[in-house]
Amino acid sequence: MIKLIALYRTPPDTAEFDTHFTAVHIPLVRQLPGLRKFEVTHITGAPIGETRHHAMLEAYFDDRDAMDAALSSKEGRALARDLMSFAAELVTVFHGEPDQPL
Amino acid sequence: MIKLIALYRTPPDTAEFDTHFTAVHIPLVRQLPGLRKFEVTHITGAPIGETRHHAMLEAYFDDRDAMDAALSSKEGRALARDLMSFAAELVTVFHGEPDQPL
Repeated sequence: MIKLIALYRTPPDTAEFDTHFTAVHIPLVRQLPGLRKFEVTHITGAPIGETRHHAMLEAYFDDRDAMDAALSSKEGRALARDLMSFAAELVTVFHGEPDQPL
Repeated sequence: MIKLIALYRTPPDTAEFDTHFTAVHIPLVRQLPGLRKFEVTHITGAPIGETRHHAMLEAYFDDRDAMDAALSSKEGRALARDLMSFAAELVTVFHGEPDQPL
């Protein structure tokens, strides 16, 4: 299993961001071929101090090949274009191998 | 549901970090009262460019009160002390409300 993680810093206009994120971006994520699970997290704070993060999106695929195929698909390219249109300055994207010990 | 997220930047000595993380830190996370699920992710790269992140730990609790109780418990304080002993300069901690649309 591999998951793609997009972490979004707090935007200048959170209402505008949230509207686009919910109405446009998440529906595009849903269309990725090979997507096994995804989880959206609305960041609400930090145990100590504040956080600069606003949201996190985690998309799970069977393996690296499946993730790469999803990102290079027509749907993946549409998703990347949308991401760049509203969150290019806010997002950090990385991937990793999840392990669930509990 | 709420999840506590700890994101670790790549340490100078990844082998030393991984040993402590696996042998000491994760067993302390397991002991948190009220922990419902946790997932450890070994960050393996980024779709474009490189990533400065090395690992992510997500710990799920029923709600904010349960998370706060876990963090202020004896086990939570031991976990925080351990975190500060090996990753104070590497870690960012925040929390949020996860939603699983798929």
